[in-house]
Amino acid sequence: MYEGAVQDLIDELGRLPGIGPKSAQRIAFHVLSAEAADVERLAHVLTEVKSKVRFCEVCGNVSEGTRCRICLDPRRSDDVLCVVEEAKDVVAIERTREFRGKYHVLGGAINPINGIGPDNLRIRELMTRLADGEVTEVILATDPNIEGEATATYLARMLRGMGIPVSRLASGLPVGGDLEYADEITLGRAFEGRRRIDA
Amino acid sequence: MYEGAVQDLIDELGRLPGIGPKSAQRIAFHVLSAEAADVERLAHVLTEVKSKVRFCEVCGNVSEGTRCRICLDPRRSDDVLCVVEEAKDVVAIERTREFRGKYHVLGGAINPINGIGPDNLRIRELMTRLADGEVTEVILATDPNIEGEATATYLARMLRGMGIPVSRLASGLPVGGDLEYADEITLGRAFEGRRRIDA
Repeated sequence: MYEGAVQDLIDELGRLPGIGPKSAQRIAFHVLSAEAADVERLAHVLTEVKSKVRFCEVCGNVSEGTRCRICLDPRRSDDVLCVVEEAKDVVAIERTREFRGKYHVLGGAINPINGIGPDNLRIRELMTRLADGEVTEVILATDPNIEGEATATYLARMLRGMGIPVSRLASGLPVGGDLEYADEITLGRAFEGRRRIDA
Repeated sequence: MYEGAVQDLIDELGRLPGIGPKSAQRIAFHVLSAEAADVERLAHVLTEVKSKVRFCEVCGNVSEGTRCRICLDPRRSDDVLCVVEEAKDVVAIERTREFRGKYHVLGGAINPINGIGPDNLRIRELMTRLADGEVTEVILATDPNIEGEATATYLARMLRGMGIPVSRLASGLPVGGDLEYADEITLGRAFEGRRRIDA
């Protein structure tokens, strides 16, 4: 519809996740009227992120060095290992400031429909990390959906017999939410996981 | 939250219109796992669009040359001029295949709240184009909202006395829509603009 370069940009933007044709057009026109320096900077960070950022050789988190900031942080405990699907999940948990251990990023969840089995995830690396006996608790923090639950169940079975306590993040009502709007599975989990408060 | 380059990319993406922090993060992680060649291509078209694309010196539409494809097209009539706010509107009208005249892109609409007055739009250029008397009809196709209506009213007043018939796109019920869901202003306009079908 547009002339050469504008259409090329709309096409490329439309390949990004969550960007439909309308958004792509909107962004392209924003780029057209933006300062050249701003666009230059965006183009620069796009290529830079590909050349600079790799994955931490220990935990699989995104990192600019061979090891990530968290793995290198001496104030963080090596006793507790929190297993997550993606690097995004590390950031979400870090935001809570509740966890001072280390992470292990699987790089996804078991999803047979998309052809992702245990061998496609960093499970072998997890087993190697746990082999030296330093870790005293493993927290399975995969997503509370079918794939995440399947992955947690698989990992719990793998870890059984290693003598390391394994826990799973609690499911229940989101704080600040409304009980009547909770779906029945979440509400069921909240009942199941209810805690005594009279003690 | 993230290390250097990843956070830089998230920040830059978050400056684009319609991209919130969550989308920016999602796109950044997509970029991290995408093929280097694909990211390179996106970075390339971003800078290329800035260097290649300019605005047509006649109509103000986006163009890779000094004049746009539509202005250069000898099959298009010079008699009818369609005045729009943005280059996007040209594409929308072209899609209808109803219009075979030329365009004039104002570069926005009168919006006192955002400090956009008539002098910030390409109205002087419009007057110059109309001065030679070749145009026999002006269609005001600004948006059917407050700013677009104000701009159309302003232009209609400017053009009065030039002896050129001026029309405005019809307002009414959207085709394929449902009468009961139409807002009262649209429905009011549809009544106002009703057409006899018995003749």
